[in-house]
Amino acid sequence: MSENPRPLGVAVIGYSFMGKAHSNAWRNVGAFYPDTPPVVQQVLVGRDPAAVKAAADRYGWAESATDWADVVGRDDIDIVDICAPGHLHADIALAALAAGKHVLVEKPLANSVAESEAMVAAAATATGRSMIGFNYRRVPALALARQVIAEGRIGTVRQVRAAYLQDWLSNATAPMTWRLRREQAGSGALGDLGSHVVDQLHHLLGEQVVCARGHLQTFVTERVGDAGREPVTVDDAAWATLETASGVVASVEVSRMATGRKNRMSLEIYGSEGALTFDLERLNELGIDDGTGLRRVLVTEESHPYLAAWWPPGHTLGWDHTFTSQAADLLTAISNDVAPSPSFADGLAVQRVLAAIEASDARAGTCVDV
Amino acid sequence: MSENPRPLGVAVIGYSFMGKAHSNAWRNVGAFYPDTPPVVQQVLVGRDPAAVKAAADRYGWAESATDWADVVGRDDIDIVDICAPGHLHADIALAALAAGKHVLVEKPLANSVAESEAMVAAAATATGRSMIGFNYRRVPALALARQVIAEGRIGTVRQVRAAYLQDWLSNATAPMTWRLRREQAGSGALGDLGSHVVDQLHHLLGEQVVCARGHLQTFVTERVGDAGREPVTVDDAAWATLETASGVVASVEVSRMATGRKNRMSLEIYGSEGALTFDLERLNELGIDDGTGLRRVLVTEESHPYLAAWWPPGHTLGWDHTFTSQAADLLTAISNDVAPSPSFADGLAVQRVLAAIEASDARAGTCVDV
Amino acid sequence: MSENPRPLGVAVIGYSFMGKAHSNAWRNVGAFYPDTPPVVQQVLVGRDPAAVKAAADRYGWAESATDWADVVGRDDIDIVDICAPGHLHADIALAALAAGKHVLVEKPLANSVAESEAMVAAAATATGRSMIGFNYRRVPALALARQVIAEGRIGTVRQVRAAYLQDWLSNATAPMTWRLRREQAGSGALGDLGSHVVDQLHHLLGEQVVCARGHLQTFVTERVGDAGREPVTVDDAAWATLETASGVVASVEVSRMATGRKNRMSLEIYGSEGALTFDLERLNELGIDDGTGLRRVLVTEESHPYLAAWWPPGHTLGWDHTFTSQAADLLTAISNDVAPSPSFADGLAVQRVLAAIEASDARAGTCVDV
Amino acid sequence: MSENPRPLGVAVIGYSFMGKAHSNAWRNVGAFYPDTPPVVQQVLVGRDPAAVKAAADRYGWAESATDWADVVGRDDIDIVDICAPGHLHADIALAALAAGKHVLVEKPLANSVAESEAMVAAAATATGRSMIGFNYRRVPALALARQVIAEGRIGTVRQVRAAYLQDWLSNATAPMTWRLRREQAGSGALGDLGSHVVDQLHHLLGEQVVCARGHLQTFVTERVGDAGREPVTVDDAAWATLETASGVVASVEVSRMATGRKNRMSLEIYGSEGALTFDLERLNELGIDDGTGLRRVLVTEESHPYLAAWWPPGHTLGWDHTFTSQAADLLTAISNDVAPSPSFADGLAVQRVLAAIEASDARAGTCVDV
Repeated sequence: MSENPRPLGVAVIGYSFMGKAHSNAWRNVGAFYPDTPPVVQQVLVGRDPAAVKAAADRYGWAESATDWADVVGRDDIDIVDICAPGHLHADIALAALAAGKHVLVEKPLANSVAESEAMVAAAATATGRSMIGFNYRRVPALALARQVIAEGRIGTVRQVRAAYLQDWLSNATAPMTWRLRREQAGSGALGDLGSHVVDQLHHLLGEQVVCARGHLQTFVTERVGDAGREPVTVDDAAWATLETASGVVASVEVSRMATGRKNRMSLEIYGSEGALTFDLERLNELGIDDGTGLRRVLVTEESHPYLAAWWPPGHTLGWDHTFTSQAADLLTAISNDVAPSPSFADGLAVQRVLAAIEASDARAGTCVDV
Repeated sequence: MSENPRPLGVAVIGYSFMGKAHSNAWRNVGAFYPDTPPVVQQVLVGRDPAAVKAAADRYGWAESATDWADVVGRDDIDIVDICAPGHLHADIALAALAAGKHVLVEKPLANSVAESEAMVAAAATATGRSMIGFNYRRVPALALARQVIAEGRIGTVRQVRAAYLQDWLSNATAPMTWRLRREQAGSGALGDLGSHVVDQLHHLLGEQVVCARGHLQTFVTERVGDAGREPVTVDDAAWATLETASGVVASVEVSRMATGRKNRMSLEIYGSEGALTFDLERLNELGIDDGTGLRRVLVTEESHPYLAAWWPPGHTLGWDHTFTSQAADLLTAISNDVAPSPSFADGLAVQRVLAAIEASDARAGTCVDV
Repeated sequence: MSENPRPLGVAVIGYSFMGKAHSNAWRNVGAFYPDTPPVVQQVLVGRDPAAVKAAADRYGWAESATDWADVVGRDDIDIVDICAPGHLHADIALAALAAGKHVLVEKPLANSVAESEAMVAAAATATGRSMIGFNYRRVPALALARQVIAEGRIGTVRQVRAAYLQDWLSNATAPMTWRLRREQAGSGALGDLGSHVVDQLHHLLGEQVVCARGHLQTFVTERVGDAGREPVTVDDAAWATLETASGVVASVEVSRMATGRKNRMSLEIYGSEGALTFDLERLNELGIDDGTGLRRVLVTEESHPYLAAWWPPGHTLGWDHTFTSQAADLLTAISNDVAPSPSFADGLAVQRVLAAIEASDARAGTCVDV
Repeated sequence: MSENPRPLGVAVIGYSFMGKAHSNAWRNVGAFYPDTPPVVQQVLVGRDPAAVKAAADRYGWAESATDWADVVGRDDIDIVDICAPGHLHADIALAALAAGKHVLVEKPLANSVAESEAMVAAAATATGRSMIGFNYRRVPALALARQVIAEGRIGTVRQVRAAYLQDWLSNATAPMTWRLRREQAGSGALGDLGSHVVDQLHHLLGEQVVCARGHLQTFVTERVGDAGREPVTVDDAAWATLETASGVVASVEVSRMATGRKNRMSLEIYGSEGALTFDLERLNELGIDDGTGLRRVLVTEESHPYLAAWWPPGHTLGWDHTFTSQAADLLTAISNDVAPSPSFADGLAVQRVLAAIEASDARAGTCVDV
């Protein structure tokens, strides 16, 4: 229970897709998690004054602003929530931490390992709390999966088969966008989708990946956009075989070309005494096999993670509820004066794994002739 | 686009499960449906002053009140949203309509056909708009199903196989509650779950049930509650075979004893040229068979009903989003000065079907000896 | 273990669909069930001499014949297996029993209750053994389901939701056939598909249906065949709500108009402590819910019913294997000098239930107006 | 239609699991494929005289023998079907081909690439026909998948996600067997399961894998058998990323440690305009996505590959039916005087891919440190 004299002032930087999702979280967190410290939606920040003003009105913000640098130091702002493009993450986060604010950064932590390392260093000495927004840690089924594994109910985990499959680039006439330029996006499917999968490995297994084999592929090498035809410089799909400290082997496949798959993050976790399965397109369900067959568990019971805050059994949650629970977890950590999880270091760990995958692919003679 | 000089003032009567769900809808409707007239969460009404005050604070209401009669006539209230127990629906709705307010009533319309008829009569001459809250009409997959049928894509519908299965009474030691007393609850599984199914038949088929065969059963005839052991006077499960005006035959099975089923409203609709399937536990999906096999369609595309308001493809919705879309539909109807749907008459039609099922069951010699 | 001095001689009467399936069983039973008494495929009987000769050669029979009356009394015949049309069942069975043969009759036992009663009476005093061919009792998953229920693992069964859905009449231009004339086929979907479902109820629950409510419907009332346009005089679909001696309520829905369903006998069995699910289109699987969620069990383990005779775990069986196991069960009963199961009386019991469903439907004012 | 003066005499070498499956095929092929040349089950060969005699009697063979060398040259033998252990394949096949016989060899073609090459060379100049037994090419759903791809219905294939998962070694106390010794088994999961997957890639895509990345892992490095504790010298699981001549990337994961998976060969094939999915545990089904969602097709229609030989729509096949269809395909090729498919060269191609995967894994520094 918070003893703050006033509600925590929140600023969100960015007002498009992620800004909308995070705004929704701040607007609703108090209704579902009444024991968290109260917040006020103070200011929404974006570059286009009219557009950000309209978004602020729509999403319930008291005001809007166009310059994040003006906002992150304001006395009425306690939490800076960064939904801006990845190349701005480091600058904003470092400024906000320097100003003593709590900081939530959407994934990826930054576009480079170097920037991420600087953020981790800053977070270590800051007075404010810091957190990275791997929202899928708040999918109740995945939080339950972590519990089941930690309790040893599937024995020793040996093998994980993971994928994150989408299809929005499957059509070769899908237009060129900034997301397909390496200098702007940093990475393609590997960074966008693979980061979620690698974080889940760390989250579910409670240990880190230590080495990686991988391959990246661009199937459609040129696309036509507003600037005419230009090369695609990021990967359409990527594959990796990862090993953890304890010897778990995890296969990872990510793609934006998997025709018919919309948002299929699929996990199969095989242990010595059981198994778990999950599919993000059916995020209210967890498959649990305790050695007698795969049970489909509808993760909507009051006893399941996060569910006591929401609705009665059988009343399912959607994708956006994960952000509300994420906000609640951050507020609880602030209130309890403990480090939120996942940390900036967790974000850096993911990026290092992705970098190792790319390094593996870049070696000469990677593919052995038949 | 609304031209109201001020936001529409909303009062919700009731603050438990349904009050929480409706509050959530009013708090969020503007963020997702920005073209609806703006609303203000004016007052939350309940009998316990402290409890309703706490709920009002939590759920974003400007104030709370304990007497609905004081509230429904207030000048700053434009919409009265009734989430109170069913036996109060008629009184509140009639008063609110008399005061010229728009009225949204949670299902069931009322506890008796007579009350429902009075409400339909009042709605017919009122200046305010009226609507019944069959929220599952706003499940995007079910709205899409209605479109698919209306467009003739599965040909002439002949046969519907429907069920609504829960299991919260499966354990014979589950305690006695007011929901299991006929004088308070009016009905058991038939009214609670069957009403949703019958409304979906009307919604999906675009026509009404005209006759009914049915059977009701109470498997556990006594339970122990706070008042000791007492008889269960409502049905645990019910079955019906219904016929529509055009000759569709629909089977309906509802139960609170279907062990393992949490909220499974399952629909199979067979037409001369195709079929549809749906399961509420997987509410983002619709099965569409156009004669070549059952396709699983993830109903999250921008072109699907309601989805343009929400998130990109593959980002699923939950149960509560249906209430937000319901509020949007009511506001749009008010703004456009047209009758919202479903109407009080739609609610009455459902109750008449349920009454016919009970009448069928009550006849002598219903079951023919083998 | 048999001590017969010579292999048992088998005659199959009929050589079309069922004759092919039963021939396959007799040809293979010894290879998979080596402890059953040996058999010899002696004679295949049919009316068309050339066609039955060709079928006999193809299916491994020593000879063919055209008159069943000549065959059923032959000294080298021990088992008469009747796959002829239903209206011939009684005559052949009575003759074979009178000649002291063991008799296997494909379902239905006969086309009328009266004929069936005569067959039951004859079987009671015959020296040969008699059995009815409800082959789905030999689906390993359904045999396992019976075990699970008998062991009390799902508690007291209360509610069964059953269907048998096909679609070969869904197209209104599907031609008229003898199967759609009441005088020849006796019944439509109810007799053809409902008989299997009712027998499964008796088999799985270990008790009998005692009363029935029902409705039959013909959606396409005329079809065009070789004889031009004529009325369809059997049901396309039927619905029933059945009650057993102990108070289980079972809903049954059968249809030949369920577009997209090919052979979907679907069972959901709800008990006080668990549930079972089954779908004939996935006949190697049984859903078992022991109260913690529905487990999908691949019924291919050596410990599962019938499986020790077949292949290692994970190597699935098909529809036709049930007939081979049925033949083995008959042979084992003969060898052990015990009554095979299911008996002619079991076949009669099913027909009485179907008759009660029709009687229920025939009553005046069956459907109560809304 | 064959014009052979007498039925083709068949000898099967081996009488355990595969010998049983192949015997079943020869016993039944004529009943289901009457247009193939007739065969006679002449002789079953095995080392233990009593055991092979008993098996021959059970499985329908005219005689048994203990020395394959005596059998393969007999005048009354036309087809030699080799189900013996892999290290005997080359010797038997070379002798049979030298004797002018048609030869069917169970997969793998041989235990080494060198032996396989010798077999391919011998087959090229032999008068008899030769075939390798990749029976899953005769799963109707997979034969249909090949058709769908060849017809361009899913566009250009880009990405395949494949796995073959079993769990019989999941328990660390499962005993040591010869299958886990490299010198006897040649390989572990990679050879046993990966060979099926790689052959399916070649079969479905109609082109060959040209390079491979891979990793093999032994999770349980010692097991206790009859000879006490000894090291496991083959892989428990393996992973590969393969590329075909046209640029398809296929991921392959095989394991004997995937708890709960019994025989799950799972394929997902993503093309530019659609996708296919398959799971061997549900071998009667094919998922077909033509861009509008994944349709579940029950592959039991008369128009589907192989189905005209079997049962009416909706009547499913099992695992063993593939061997019967394989025998029919071999007989048809012999009758038509054409080369059967898959050929010995197809078997060799698979082994070269497996060898490349092992070579990839054996390189120093395979896994890049994070």
